[in-house]
Amino acid sequence: MKKKIIILDVDGVMTTGKFLYSSKGKLYKEFGAHDSDGLNLLKQNGFQISFITSDKKGFKISKKRISDDLGFKLDLISEKFRLKYLEKKYGLKNIIYFGDGYHDAKILKKCFFGIAPKNARYEAKKAANFVTESKSAEGAVLDGALKILKKFTN
Amino acid sequence: MKKKIIILDVDGVMTTGKFLYSSKGKLYKEFGAHDSDGLNLLKQNGFQISFITSDKKGFKISKKRISDDLGFKLDLISEKFRLKYLEKKYGLKNIIYFGDGYHDAKILKKCFFGIAPKNARYEAKKAANFVTESKSAEGAVLDGALKILKKFTN
Amino acid sequence: MKKKIIILDVDGVMTTGKFLYSSKGKLYKEFGAHDSDGLNLLKQNGFQISFITSDKKGFKISKKRISDDLGFKLDLISEKFRLKYLEKKYGLKNIIYFGDGYHDAKILKKCFFGIAPKNARYEAKKAANFVTESKSAEGAVLDGALKILKKFTN
Amino acid sequence: MKKKIIILDVDGVMTTGKFLYSSKGKLYKEFGAHDSDGLNLLKQNGFQISFITSDKKGFKISKKRISDDLGFKLDLISEKFRLKYLEKKYGLKNIIYFGDGYHDAKILKKCFFGIAPKNARYEAKKAANFVTESKSAEGAVLDGALKILKKFTN
Repeated sequence: MKKKIIILDVDGVMTTGKFLYSSKGKLYKEFGAHDSDGLNLLKQNGFQISFITSDKKGFKISKKRISDDLGFKLDLISEKFRLKYLEKKYGLKNIIYFGDGYHDAKILKKCFFGIAPKNARYEAKKAANFVTESKSAEGAVLDGALKILKKFTN
Repeated sequence: MKKKIIILDVDGVMTTGKFLYSSKGKLYKEFGAHDSDGLNLLKQNGFQISFITSDKKGFKISKKRISDDLGFKLDLISEKFRLKYLEKKYGLKNIIYFGDGYHDAKILKKCFFGIAPKNARYEAKKAANFVTESKSAEGAVLDGALKILKKFTN
Repeated sequence: MKKKIIILDVDGVMTTGKFLYSSKGKLYKEFGAHDSDGLNLLKQNGFQISFITSDKKGFKISKKRISDDLGFKLDLISEKFRLKYLEKKYGLKNIIYFGDGYHDAKILKKCFFGIAPKNARYEAKKAANFVTESKSAEGAVLDGALKILKKFTN
Repeated sequence: MKKKIIILDVDGVMTTGKFLYSSKGKLYKEFGAHDSDGLNLLKQNGFQISFITSDKKGFKISKKRISDDLGFKLDLISEKFRLKYLEKKYGLKNIIYFGDGYHDAKILKKCFFGIAPKNARYEAKKAANFVTESKSAEGAVLDGALKILKKFTN
């Protein structure tokens, strides 16, 4: 079987889902220490990994962490077009998708294998194939990576 | 039935209720990623939405998020006058109110429909018609929005 | 009965007990929105309130919140001398004390009435007369204030 | 018995394991107020203490807290070489090790006595001799220090 492509949402999957605001705007996001271990394990096992976000105002923050520091591709696609974009670019049946939001539910349902963090929206968890034991930014992506390795490699 | 006006408190409803202080003062508040989905759903269904706060020292932070970034009206009214202000401006029986604090309890009790986040003060939760499953800044406003749509639209 | 003086520790009582560090040092502390309601209720009922801290490096942050913004006295006393200082200045039997730390246990045991937040050290909670339902920075001081008003006013 | 050397990982042991990112990069880490009490108790009882980290991008933040403010040695060793480094420098059987990560599990298993915070990775907790009652940055290191004093001093 050809290896599926792994697509991850950023806010609420790689972060706690919280934003720190000052009077100047959205300035900080909270990432966790365990998830780079998970992403590295996936890379070492030959998986292709890409990130997606709808957060325009916080894009530079996400980009700093995801692209500059961890070295992954990050696409900015408005939520309205996310499903269509993924369908057109990869085909939903070819992706393993990490998502946590209300609008992620429909993608989690239609993708090859859907993963939602423990603290995801109820709607996302209901639609996912796997819900992680850890919350986002506390190891959810590492949990999901170990699940993928166990289930889809040998 | 005429659609009720939705009024939301900011701290502890849209934020975690925590402030980051430096030696320069109150500089940051923590907002969440899910709540704009809830506010958008309410707008799309024709609800009028407005925000209220008593936090003078943190007003510029709240304004940046609520007005500049999300596009809603935000009034600064001292806690002492909040109930009277809402009564005079809208009539308490015409508003759906989101609140979390000790002094919000009396408004939650008298308004048309009162919503308190899971992590609200005991006094607020006791007075509310609905307590959300999520904590503030973790989806409480989206929970409340879905409840409103289910209960008051058809 | 003469009203007791209320003494509160800062870190872990008024804050979450966490510090945000940058490469420049300890820059932020997390305070909560509910506690000023509790302090105001105590003031309105005639209680004298004072704060104490051992955190020298974070003193300016604590001072900004406690003294400049909330208007209370804040003493910087090293942990080693805290018990002696309180005994000499007020007499331990004349104070109601809020504390959360390992070394606060001996003060909480000897004071007139000791209050520990839900997330205090085990040693502090064991020594306290009252453990709050809320965590620090999530309403612990308001919980304690309501307890004091119920128990010591009429 | 000669006193063992105590080695502590930084992220997820002394911190919550979360990073605050701005568009400029990793700028803040969250430390807790209780842990310096634990480290002081260990020092007063004659234990030698040293810290280790693999976080290159956040090294200056960790160094500010661990070395400049608390006065302990901090070594930057990539995760790949951590086990070998500790084996060569101290001998794994001569160290008491605090760790929380996926890759710490093998060290926790082989060291003299392994301690993992409550919120450590499952793999680390399974390999440790002792799991603390408190989460990291909420007293885990103080918990571990009290355990060490009880078990290895008299």
